[in-house]
Amino acid sequence: MDASMPLIYCVAFFSVVLALAFAVYLHLWVKRQPVENRTIREVSALIKAGANTFMRKEYRILAIFAAVAAVLLFIFLPNPIWSAEFEATKNLSMVVAYIAGTVLSAIAGKMGIIVATSSNGRSAEAAQKGIEPAFLIGFRGGAVMGLAVVGISLFGVAGVLLLFGDTTISLGFSFGASSLALFAKAGGGIFTKTADVSADLTGKVELGIPEDDPRNPAVIADNVGDNVGDVAGMGADLFDSNVAAMTSALVLATSLEAATGTATAQLANVAMVFMYAALGLIASIIGIATARIGKGGTPTKALNSSTYVTSGVFVVLTALATLLFEGFSWRIWGASTVGLVVGVIIGLTTDYFTDDTKPIVQRVAHASRSGSAFTVLSGVSYGFISALPAMIGIAVSALAAYKICEPLGTQYALFGIAMAAVGMLSIVGMIISNDAYGPIVDNARGLAEMGGLGEDTIRIADELDSAGNTVKAVTKGFAIGAAGLTVISLLGAYMSEANVALQALGRELITGFDIMNPVVFFGLLIGAAIPAVFSAMLILGVDKNAQRMVAEIHRQFREIRGLREGKPGVKPEYDRCINIATSGALRELIPAGLMAIVATLLVGFIGGPLAIGGFLMGNIVSGLLLSLFMSNAGGLWDNSKKYVEAGNEGGKGSEAHKAAVVGDTVGDPFKDTAGPSINTQITVVSLVASLMSAIFAASSLFH
Amino acid sequence: MDASMPLIYCVAFFSVVLALAFAVYLHLWVKRQPVENRTIREVSALIKAGANTFMRKEYRILAIFAAVAAVLLFIFLPNPIWSAEFEATKNLSMVVAYIAGTVLSAIAGKMGIIVATSSNGRSAEAAQKGIEPAFLIGFRGGAVMGLAVVGISLFGVAGVLLLFGDTTISLGFSFGASSLALFAKAGGGIFTKTADVSADLTGKVELGIPEDDPRNPAVIADNVGDNVGDVAGMGADLFDSNVAAMTSALVLATSLEAATGTATAQLANVAMVFMYAALGLIASIIGIATARIGKGGTPTKALNSSTYVTSGVFVVLTALATLLFEGFSWRIWGASTVGLVVGVIIGLTTDYFTDDTKPIVQRVAHASRSGSAFTVLSGVSYGFISALPAMIGIAVSALAAYKICEPLGTQYALFGIAMAAVGMLSIVGMIISNDAYGPIVDNARGLAEMGGLGEDTIRIADELDSAGNTVKAVTKGFAIGAAGLTVISLLGAYMSEANVALQALGRELITGFDIMNPVVFFGLLIGAAIPAVFSAMLILGVDKNAQRMVAEIHRQFREIRGLREGKPGVKPEYDRCINIATSGALRELIPAGLMAIVATLLVGFIGGPLAIGGFLMGNIVSGLLLSLFMSNAGGLWDNSKKYVEAGNEGGKGSEAHKAAVVGDTVGDPFKDTAGPSINTQITVVSLVASLMSAIFAASSLFH
Repeated sequence: MDASMPLIYCVAFFSVVLALAFAVYLHLWVKRQPVENRTIREVSALIKAGANTFMRKEYRILAIFAAVAAVLLFIFLPNPIWSAEFEATKNLSMVVAYIAGTVLSAIAGKMGIIVATSSNGRSAEAAQKGIEPAFLIGFRGGAVMGLAVVGISLFGVAGVLLLFGDTTISLGFSFGASSLALFAKAGGGIFTKTADVSADLTGKVELGIPEDDPRNPAVIADNVGDNVGDVAGMGADLFDSNVAAMTSALVLATSLEAATGTATAQLANVAMVFMYAALGLIASIIGIATARIGKGGTPTKALNSSTYVTSGVFVVLTALATLLFEGFSWRIWGASTVGLVVGVIIGLTTDYFTDDTKPIVQRVAHASRSGSAFTVLSGVSYGFISALPAMIGIAVSALAAYKICEPLGTQYALFGIAMAAVGMLSIVGMIISNDAYGPIVDNARGLAEMGGLGEDTIRIADELDSAGNTVKAVTKGFAIGAAGLTVISLLGAYMSEANVALQALGRELITGFDIMNPVVFFGLLIGAAIPAVFSAMLILGVDKNAQRMVAEIHRQFREIRGLREGKPGVKPEYDRCINIATSGALRELIPAGLMAIVATLLVGFIGGPLAIGGFLMGNIVSGLLLSLFMSNAGGLWDNSKKYVEAGNEGGKGSEAHKAAVVGDTVGDPFKDTAGPSINTQITVVSLVASLMSAIFAASSLFH
Repeated sequence: MDASMPLIYCVAFFSVVLALAFAVYLHLWVKRQPVENRTIREVSALIKAGANTFMRKEYRILAIFAAVAAVLLFIFLPNPIWSAEFEATKNLSMVVAYIAGTVLSAIAGKMGIIVATSSNGRSAEAAQKGIEPAFLIGFRGGAVMGLAVVGISLFGVAGVLLLFGDTTISLGFSFGASSLALFAKAGGGIFTKTADVSADLTGKVELGIPEDDPRNPAVIADNVGDNVGDVAGMGADLFDSNVAAMTSALVLATSLEAATGTATAQLANVAMVFMYAALGLIASIIGIATARIGKGGTPTKALNSSTYVTSGVFVVLTALATLLFEGFSWRIWGASTVGLVVGVIIGLTTDYFTDDTKPIVQRVAHASRSGSAFTVLSGVSYGFISALPAMIGIAVSALAAYKICEPLGTQYALFGIAMAAVGMLSIVGMIISNDAYGPIVDNARGLAEMGGLGEDTIRIADELDSAGNTVKAVTKGFAIGAAGLTVISLLGAYMSEANVALQALGRELITGFDIMNPVVFFGLLIGAAIPAVFSAMLILGVDKNAQRMVAEIHRQFREIRGLREGKPGVKPEYDRCINIATSGALRELIPAGLMAIVATLLVGFIGGPLAIGGFLMGNIVSGLLLSLFMSNAGGLWDNSKKYVEAGNEGGKGSEAHKAAVVGDTVGDPFKDTAGPSINTQITVVSLVASLMSAIFAASSLFH
C-alpha cells in the first residue's frame, strides 16, 4: 500500500489543478459576456467597491486576531514552550499551518467575490435575451466560488499533511480555516442583515419607496451584503466544514494505526480520505459542466438535477476506486454513500417545510390573517418541528455508518462516521455553486430594476431569483447535516488528541464520555447553552447595528437636499452606510466569538478533558437543533411573505401581508445571521478544545 | 440502623398528618372570611363550576388513559406475562401503585381547586379593608394547595414503599403521578391560553372592551383557566417532580446496597430521603405560618421572606438530623444544601431577566418602538441568554454534589446529586403556595372589577397581583432547576433498572452512556428534538383551539340580542366557551403526549438500553434549554408590556404598546403552555424508559 500514497497525492493534486483550471475558464467565460447598460455598470462597480471595503477591513482585523492567535499557538501548541517535549520546529509548523488555513480560505473567498460581483450585472443584461443565458452566467459565476473553495481546501489539507506528516499540525490548518469562517460567516451575516433591515425599515416602511430604489442610502450596502454574507461568508463556512471533515477523518485514520497495529491500515485509510475528496471534486466538475435549463426546463430543475448528477457520479467513481485499490473497504464506501443519501433526504424534508407550494408555508401565511403574533407562533412551531427529520437523518446515518463499519473493528466505526461526513460533503463544490448562484441572481434582479431593463427582463430575473431561494433550502440541509456528522468525528479527533496528552502525563486514557459522569454532564449542560447565547448575541448585534444605520439614513435624508425628491444628480452617500455595516458587524461579532472560546477554556480548566467532551457534545446537539430551527423558520417566514405577496390571503397591503412582513423581519437574522453561524461556532469550539487538550489534561481543577 | 426505619416512617407520616391538618385549618380559616357582594358570589360560583367541568372531563379521559395503561402495565411490568420471572402479585402491585399515583395527585389537585376558587372572591372583598387581610386570604388559599401536594406526595411515596418494599414498584407510582401531570399541566396550559388569547383577541382588540368585561363570553373561561392551568396544573407538575425526586433517590439508595455490600447503608440512605422530605414539609409549614406583610412591607417581600425562612429552617433541621442520626452523612447534607442554595441563585437570575425594574425588560420595551419584529427578536435573544445562568447553576450543583459525595464511594456520587434535587425540592410546599397565590389574586382583581368594589380596592388587588407575577419568576426557576437535577437521578434510576434486566438476560451490564458510542449518539440527537416538537404541538394546539373559541364568541355576539350593547339581564353562554376550551385542550394534548411516548418506544426498540440513555439525556438537555428559554422569554414579554402600559416608551395605545402586545401574545403560550409542560414531558419519557427497560434490553434491534 505504501506505494500507492504518492499516487493518491498525485490524484488529489491533479483534481485540484483540474478544478482551478476549470474555475479560471468559467471566470474568463463570464468576463467575455457583455455589460453595456451604464447604470448597471455604475451600480455594479459600487457593489464591487463596497464588498471590497468590507473584505479589506475584515481581513485587516482578522490579521490582528490571527497574529495574536499565532503567538499563542507558538507558545502553547502542540507542547508549551516550557515543557520537556517542546520543539521549536513543531510549534512553528503549527503556526505556519494555522496561517495557511486563514490565507487559503481568504483567497477562495476573494475569488468568489470577484466573480460574483462581475457576474451580477452580466446576468441582468443577459436576461434580456432569455432565461438560459442569464441562468448560465449566474450559475457559472457561482461555480467559480464552488470550485475555488473545494479545490483550495483539498490543496491545503493535502499540502499540510505532505509537508509536516503530522495530523496534529493539520488541526492547526483547520483552526485557521475556522477563524476565517467565524469572521466571514458571522461578520458577513451581521453586515447583510444590518443593511437589509435598515433598507427595508427606512425605504419600504417609512418612505414607501420600492426595494431597490437608488435614493435609499442603504441600497448599495444591501446588495453588498448579499455578496459578503451569502457568497464569501457561506463559502468560508463550507471551506471550514470541508477542511474539518477531511482533517478529522485523517486524525481518525492515523489513530487506526495504534488500534490495528499496522501502518498499512493507516495508509489505506488516509489514501481513502484523499481519494474520496478528489473524486467528489471531479464529480462536481462534471455536474457543473452539464448544468443546462434545456427545453421545457426550469432553473430549479436545472440546479437540482446537476446536484443529482454530481451525487450519482460520485457514488460510481468511489465504487470504481474501491474496486481498483487494494485496502479500500466496501464498508467504508457504504458509509460514505449512506452519508450522501441522507444528505439528499434532509434536503428534501427541509424543502417540504420551506417551499411555498407545500402546505406548511401556506398555513403560516393563513395564520397571518389573525395578526403577527400568530405568524410568529406558527412559524416558531413549524420551525421546531422541521428540525426533527434532519435530526433523525443525522442520527440514523451515524448509526448506519457505525454498524456498517463495525465488522472492520470497533475503531473503524468512528472512522465510518467520519467518512459518511466526507461523503455528504463530497458534493460540496456543487452545493456552493448553487448557493452562490442565489445572491448573484438576486443582485441581477436589483440591477435589472435600477437599469430600467423592462418588465420582461425583471420577470426572468425574478424567476431565477426564486429558484435560488428554493434550491438554497436543499443545500442548507446538506450543509447542516454534514456539519452534524463532522462534529462527531471532530469529537473523535479531540479524544485521540486528549489521549496522546494523557499518555504523556502517565494518566488513565479516555475511553469515552459517559453522560452519567457528572463531570461530563457539567460540560454537557454548559455546552448546550452556548449556541443559544451565541445566536442571541449575533441577533442583538444586528439590532444595534441596524439602529446606527437607520440613524445615518435619516441624517442623509435630512441633510442632503433633493435626495428625498429624487432630484437628478443628487446621490446619497452610499459608502457611509457601507462603513457603518462593516465596522458594526466586526464590532458586534467579536464578543460573541470570544464568549464561545472563553466558555470552552473555563469548562476545560475546571472540568478537564472529560468535561470538554460533554461540552462539545452539548454544543453539537443544541447547535444542530437551533440552527435547523432558525434556518428553517426564517426560510418559511420569507416564503410565506412571498406567498402572500403573490396575491394569497389578501395579497399585498392586506393585514395578513403586514403580519407576514413581521415574520420575515424576525426570520431574516434567524436564517442569514444566527442560524448558519452556529456551524462555525461549533467548529471553532471543537478545534480550540482539540488544540488545548494537552493543557486541559495537565492543569484542570477536576478530572 | 434497622431500628431507626420504623422511626423514620413515623416521622414521615407525622409530618404528613401535621401538614394536612394545617391545610384543613387554613381552609376553614379562609371559609370563615366573608363574601357579601352578589356579583362576586355569582361570578365566583361560575368560575368554580367551570373549573369543575374541566376537572371532571379531564379526570374522565385520564381514567380511560389510566385504565389502558394499567392493563399494559399488568401485561408487561415488571416482567411480561409470558416470561419465566412473571409473578401476578408483582405486576398487580405495579398496577395498584400506578393507580395510586394518579388518584393521589388528582386528590391534591382537586383540593387546590376547591380552596383557590373559594379564596378568590374573599380576597377581593378583603381588599376593601386593606392589603394585609387580602394578602393573607390569597396566600393561605395557595398554601392549602402547597401543603396538600407535598403532604400527599410524601404519604404516597412512603406508603407504596412500606407496602410493597420494592423501589421498582415505586417507579409505577411515580409514573401514575406523571400521567396525571401530563394531562393537568399540558391540558390545563392549553385551556388557559386558549381562553386568554380568545378573550383578548375578541374583547380588547376587536370590540375595545376592558379585560374582565362580563359581556365577553370567554371571560369566565379565562378566569377558569387561571385556576386549572396555574393552580391544578402547576400543582400536579410539582407533585410529579417531588415524587420523581424522592423515587429516584430511593432507587439509587437501594442500589447502593449492591455497591457497598451492606444493607445498613441502604437503610440509612432510604431513611435520609424520607427524613429530608419530612423536614422540608415541616420547614414549609413554619414558613407559611410566619408569612405576614407587616409594617412598611410589601407582598413581594412577604412572599420572598417566607421562602427564605423555609430554606433556612430546612438547612438547620437537616443539620440537626445529621447530628442526631447515626449513618446520616454530612456530605449528603452538603449536597442537599448546595441544591437549595443553587435553587435560590437560579431564582434570582431569572428575576433579573423578567423584572420590569431591571434593564432587560426595559430594553425589550424600548426595542418595541421600532415595531413588533424587534420586540420578538430582542425577547427571543434575551430569552436565550437567560437560559445560561440556570444551565450553569444546574451544572455546577451537579458537579459540586458529586464531588462532595465522591469520597463516600463512587456510587454515592450519583446519590449525592439525587439528594441535591431533594434539597432543591425540599421547599416545594412553599413554592407551590407562592405559585397558587398568583392565580387567586389574579382572579380577585377581576372579581373586584366586576363587583364594582371601587378604585382603591382594585389598586390593592393590582399590587397583590403584580407581586404574584414577580415571585412566580423565582419559583419557576426553582422548579426548572430541581427538574434538571431530578432527571439526572432518574437517568441513574433508569440505569439500575436496565442493569437488573441485563443481569437477568446474562448480558454485559451498562456502566455508563458513552456519547462517542453512535448508538448513544443516535438516541441523543432524537431525544434532543422531542421537546422542540412537543412544545410546537402544544403551541399549535392553543392556536387551533383559540380559532374555534373565537368563532364561537363571534357567533354569540351575532346571535344573542343585546349582548354587545350590554342590555341588562342579557348574558353570554359562558359554558359553551368553557366546553370548547376543555374538549379542545384534551384533544390537542393527546397527540403531543403520544408522540413523546412513541418516540421513546421506537428509539428503545431500535437502539436498546444504550440508545435510551442517550435519548433521555438529549431530552433533558434540550428540554431544560427550551423550557428556560420559553418561560423566561414569555415572562419578560409580559412584563415589558406592563412596563409600557405603566406609561413608559409612549404608554398605552402607542406604537410601542401595540408591538409589546404582540410580544405578550407570542409569550403567553411560551410561558404558560409549552415551557412548563416540558418538565412533565421529560418525566413521562424517563419513567416510560425505566419501566420498559427490561423489554428494550430483551428485544431491541441493535445493542
